[in-house]
Amino acid sequence: MSKTVSPLAPKSTPTLPPIEGVRMATAQAGIRYKDRTDVLYLTLAKDTAVAGVFTRSKCPSAPVDWCRRNLEKGTARALVVNSGNANAFTGRAGAKAAKLTADIAARAAGCRASQVFVASTGVIGEPLDATRFEGVLEVCEARAKPTAWLDAAKAIMTTDTFPKLATRSAPLGGVQVRINGIAKGAGMIAPDMATMLSFVFTDAPLAATVLQALLRKGAEKSFNCVTVDGDTSTSDTLLIFATGAAGARGAPAIALPSDRRLAPFRAALEDLLTDLAQQVARDGEGARKFVTVKVTGATTASSAKRIAMAIANSPLVKTAVGGEDANWGRVVMAVGKAGEPADRDKLTIWFGDIRVAAKGARDPGYDEARTTAYMKGDEILIRVDLGLGRGEATTWTCDLTKAYVEINGDYRS
Amino acid sequence: MSKTVSPLAPKSTPTLPPIEGVRMATAQAGIRYKDRTDVLYLTLAKDTAVAGVFTRSKCPSAPVDWCRRNLEKGTARALVVNSGNANAFTGRAGAKAAKLTADIAARAAGCRASQVFVASTGVIGEPLDATRFEGVLEVCEARAKPTAWLDAAKAIMTTDTFPKLATRSAPLGGVQVRINGIAKGAGMIAPDMATMLSFVFTDAPLAATVLQALLRKGAEKSFNCVTVDGDTSTSDTLLIFATGAAGARGAPAIALPSDRRLAPFRAALEDLLTDLAQQVARDGEGARKFVTVKVTGATTASSAKRIAMAIANSPLVKTAVGGEDANWGRVVMAVGKAGEPADRDKLTIWFGDIRVAAKGARDPGYDEARTTAYMKGDEILIRVDLGLGRGEATTWTCDLTKAYVEINGDYRS
Repeated sequence: MSKTVSPLAPKSTPTLPPIEGVRMATAQAGIRYKDRTDVLYLTLAKDTAVAGVFTRSKCPSAPVDWCRRNLEKGTARALVVNSGNANAFTGRAGAKAAKLTADIAARAAGCRASQVFVASTGVIGEPLDATRFEGVLEVCEARAKPTAWLDAAKAIMTTDTFPKLATRSAPLGGVQVRINGIAKGAGMIAPDMATMLSFVFTDAPLAATVLQALLRKGAEKSFNCVTVDGDTSTSDTLLIFATGAAGARGAPAIALPSDRRLAPFRAALEDLLTDLAQQVARDGEGARKFVTVKVTGATTASSAKRIAMAIANSPLVKTAVGGEDANWGRVVMAVGKAGEPADRDKLTIWFGDIRVAAKGARDPGYDEARTTAYMKGDEILIRVDLGLGRGEATTWTCDLTKAYVEINGDYRS
Repeated sequence: MSKTVSPLAPKSTPTLPPIEGVRMATAQAGIRYKDRTDVLYLTLAKDTAVAGVFTRSKCPSAPVDWCRRNLEKGTARALVVNSGNANAFTGRAGAKAAKLTADIAARAAGCRASQVFVASTGVIGEPLDATRFEGVLEVCEARAKPTAWLDAAKAIMTTDTFPKLATRSAPLGGVQVRINGIAKGAGMIAPDMATMLSFVFTDAPLAATVLQALLRKGAEKSFNCVTVDGDTSTSDTLLIFATGAAGARGAPAIALPSDRRLAPFRAALEDLLTDLAQQVARDGEGARKFVTVKVTGATTASSAKRIAMAIANSPLVKTAVGGEDANWGRVVMAVGKAGEPADRDKLTIWFGDIRVAAKGARDPGYDEARTTAYMKGDEILIRVDLGLGRGEATTWTCDLTKAYVEINGDYRS
């Protein structure tokens, strides 16, 4: 955790309400950090449904392997997240550490190990000493409260400068249900399931297959649209848990993703995921500016997204934004390198509302002073119209600053 | 041009011999810089054959368009290169500026405009005032000498800290022929024809089709294996010119790429291209360390290359190298994100000769002190064996430092 909070942090931290069936506690297990919490334990009501999406890395962490395997059963009773050590590329010992963590949590929660979901974030390649959770998780179970969301979000931070929380509610069959989420960044952030870790909880009575469908689509529009450095983590994990407790208040159990009653819930969930994803970009390592890249007029939506990601991932675009330089030539470069259909002479580019380039050349009315003034803001919109079709996409990123280099030049020690 | 030369620059600058049929001069056209040369003019013997490979950007510069169009005819009489302005994304005015440059050079050289090849490097999106070449190129023609190679390499520099030159010779049918090359970097360097500009000259009597085949294959193994920031330029241009003058000394005219007599020439050309490509990486913006990434044991050579590029392009790997941190976990991450076949538990990773990870975990004999000492060197070898097949590839890059961010934070002003 950094002492200086990102200037792009939300103005206030939301207070999350309880989600019936979810209790939590945090502790200092001494994994790596001194004088801060590094483990989050969540206990979940019986029959809690679970769904998840994970990194597409070919070298996933041991916890990702563990979660994937247990997701098939579709129910969860506990979640354990540690920071300081990613338990990634730790071989057979890593798989054992994930299992031992689940075993200890299972004893604490009174459930099967296969109902425990685990996630780890921090250094890759160092063995995780899961025996440190012995005793700790039992104490967490005893102390677990329904409202320790801020503590929960703090315990999973690594290079994050602020905790990331969001809450929404939506009607489901006439009954209001809640959705809470927490997330952490802040480097090794790229598409293919973009955050390192995010956990979402709801009291809605939704089947695991419904959750999975909602989450997959929601991730595509939110976390998979954010990038800090184009580096995909080995540990990316987004899990959603539905306790179903709202059923007792009359919310209908939903068994099919196509159920029309889901519409407000889906919208609220996507809004929450987008909120968390944007917080990740706002806390990108060394970030001083939050950048939205909006691409329209592409041949297809997926083409628009690839172009938007090429812009959002370009070190030259990002250093220019960091330097408050309206270097739209680099936006042209990034469009060109995306490999997607593009016609130089139909391209239009705006910074904010200022059209800087049109029809393959600098805008005749280009005003350097006005554009430079715009670049001094801490929220930058880069908008590109390709003039070819109706495909569009939006991605979020941050600038690339010396602080990013500093943070990552010596992360392990 | 920077005042501080990259610590990775070659220890000495080679002196290039004349290539019969090639003369050159440089001048100050006042395109952008003060008190330095910014235009290179080369005049070429009648019937000089030419071949080229260019950026795969969908938004290529006007000079790239011009060269591509004229390459079909296969002969060249002059080359004009300017620095300070890339003449990219300059619309109709850019195409006119490229044509005007060629027209002025054609008058100076006494040839057709279609026999003039042009290249521009510098800022994107600013109109290039080609009228500044009026008078200048005629003077260059009058002053052109066969040995001004160092001046030539200097005139095309932008953020480069040293001029890039290389020379080789090879027997062709028993007669020694020469190859000279110059290149410039130093940012916006990525595969898909990796350098911004490089020009190669030989006196060998090779047909344009032969040159094209040699160059395409040579670029794949050299310039397309180097990356500084993963950002593909709009202007990448690699041209080769063969005056054929060695024919008068008895070198055989080669009309077919399959001619066996080409073997030594091909090897010498590839060696020269690799030399120049490595110089580009050695002069990557802000570079303090030269990094070679060697991948073996992949399922195919192209898979190995994609993985090697994913490692070489990873900001987290590059900042760790810059910070002299043996963070091999990030190498695992980069292998994982490449999307190519990889089995975490078969992966072996070395820094130099030190095996740091094997069989999906940290090497049991891992020695932090020895590895850290290795990371302090200015030439770093990252070696990865995937343990799957026989595919291998090598790429070259540099570390990512605060200086890169500084150089690119305010490039236009």
